Amino acid sequence: MTTIRDVAKLASVSVATVSRVLNNSGYVNELTRERVNKVINELNYQPNSIARSLYKKETKTVGFIVPDISNPFFPALIRAAEDYLNEQGFTIILCNSDEDVEKEERYLSMMKQKYVDGVLIISDYLTAEQVKEAPMPILALDRTVDDDVPTVLVDNYQGGRTATKHLMEMGCERIAHIRGPEHIENANDRYDGYLNIVRDTDWFDDSYVAQGGYQLNQAKEAATKLLTENPSIDGIFASNDLMALGALKAAERLNFNVPHDVKIIGFDGIEWTKATTPELSTMSQPLYEIGKKAASLLVEIIQGNKIDQKKFIFPLTLEKRKSTER
Amino acid sequence: MTTIRDVAKLASVSVATVSRVLNNSGYVNELTRERVNKVINELNYQPNSIARSLYKKETKTVGFIVPDISNPFFPALIRAAEDYLNEQGFTIILCNSDEDVEKEERYLSMMKQKYVDGVLIISDYLTAEQVKEAPMPILALDRTVDDDVPTVLVDNYQGGRTATKHLMEMGCERIAHIRGPEHIENANDRYDGYLNIVRDTDWFDDSYVAQGGYQLNQAKEAATKLLTENPSIDGIFASNDLMALGALKAAERLNFNVPHDVKIIGFDGIEWTKATTPELSTMSQPLYEIGKKAASLLVEIIQGNKIDQKKFIFPLTLEKRKSTER
Repeated sequence: MTTIRDVAKLASVSVATVSRVLNNSGYVNELTRERVNKVINELNYQPNSIARSLYKKETKTVGFIVPDISNPFFPALIRAAEDYLNEQGFTIILCNSDEDVEKEERYLSMMKQKYVDGVLIISDYLTAEQVKEAPMPILALDRTVDDDVPTVLVDNYQGGRTATKHLMEMGCERIAHIRGPEHIENANDRYDGYLNIVRDTDWFDDSYVAQGGYQLNQAKEAATKLLTENPSIDGIFASNDLMALGALKAAERLNFNVPHDVKIIGFDGIEWTKATTPELSTMSQPLYEIGKKAASLLVEIIQGNKIDQKKFIFPLTLEKRKSTER
Repeated sequence: MTTIRDVAKLASVSVATVSRVLNNSGYVNELTRERVNKVINELNYQPNSIARSLYKKETKTVGFIVPDISNPFFPALIRAAEDYLNEQGFTIILCNSDEDVEKEERYLSMMKQKYVDGVLIISDYLTAEQVKEAPMPILALDRTVDDDVPTVLVDNYQGGRTATKHLMEMGCERIAHIRGPEHIENANDRYDGYLNIVRDTDWFDDSYVAQGGYQLNQAKEAATKLLTENPSIDGIFASNDLMALGALKAAERLNFNVPHDVKIIGFDGIEWTKATTPELSTMSQPLYEIGKKAASLLVEIIQGNKIDQKKFIFPLTLEKRKSTER
């Protein structure tokens, strides 16, 4: 393999000079720089990026800790972040935490050892202390870790309100909610949005709310129970799209026509809401924009630039499709 | 930050001794080893893995080059590989190539610079030379690069035969095929499997085959054209599930009842084949097993072990669902 010494020898300069050319630091005579670059090209010399990172104290690597890449919500975020980071010369180390606090901690510790330049994280467990103690910048997506940690997300509360109001506007008079896990903040915000709209109606009580755990099958069971015990339910707001699909499957099995007998709306805007019959209405998140924004903010922080706010909140789009038609 | 020198000082030993303890190499007196480990724990010392990798010539990092993580086929493979590699102490660097040969080459070059221990790749463009010239082991998934490169995949030809035979067994007498891109080997193998079954029938000619580019919308257009120009078509074998979904959407729009008027089968077994109404029959790949096998073989090769064969072919499962019922 070609070494920096070979380059120096052939270009008749010192190793230190080659190093200055490679790192674009310190003074190098322009003619010398050209000669060194020519030799680098001729020898097809590839600088050893590990040795370089020891010298420059940066690895051009970013960690991304996600709950589970096989959940269809996350790939679009990761893809957007990778597109941006790659343009900027960074690579992504990917970790699946399964929302397991021990795995999150282990991955974070591994990131420290590998000297990543920064970390993107989607987590409900990490504490503000852990983030502040970390030697590298950390940026949160989708879920808030702490008010002091820069975060990119959507307005889940308003999204919950909009979804519920949409069902009302389409004629629903008894609206149930399938909520997400109680330890996940965005699930609680969406639930609060729903409550804000229905709380003061004459029909509402707790029996209209069921736990679906953000899972398809759990939501299918929850919807089956809701529709069986209270057949006057004519609208369901599910806190994510997977659960909306579960509700659709439940309605189908019980011979409820969607949207005629019961209207269903989800949340997130994942692609397969367009695969169902009828297609599912949803509160669509701008996933690509969120991932890109998170990546670009992290790069700003890594480069030592100040960012002027801590929370970046993206708007949601109400996608009106067949499942909530009149 | 705590350094190896701090540990050495507090434990009253040399830096070389601490290094021997950390790397578990060379002789260290048992009492000394205990003392060093105690100090490491007290100081919460985290060995610098970059410096360690320079010394040990390994980075415990594996690259994974995939076409596009937002295609629902790939996350299950990546997840399986990450689960296994993580257990073995490796991290994954993820790259999306968009099936762009220049991006693949750039990523491979970046992997060399970062001294990854090995690379998993899903590619149709990489040449056997590029793989052989790479300084680290490379293993192919899903698509063959060269007979000499270890590869984990399914029997696409037999899968194409089985899917087509299934449509016949369910009563179809005019079976169309929506094929994948001509530069993708697995698409051609599936097409050959289809041809093997239909070639000698009295009805078959080229008008039963359309190009769907492995894309939903392109397949929807292709299916619309097929069914409009030849309404006697009563079965469609789509070369992947996304295209089967496109065919289902086309049939729906043309008021063809699925499965009564036309039966549809896909290929791959991605999750959202269960989201459609009717649910889609498919040739299901054991994606998790394939990802895990690829990762474990790569680790074997990295560790210098010989593997006894080059091709690992996993069986497909015919998932019979509503879309092909009689």
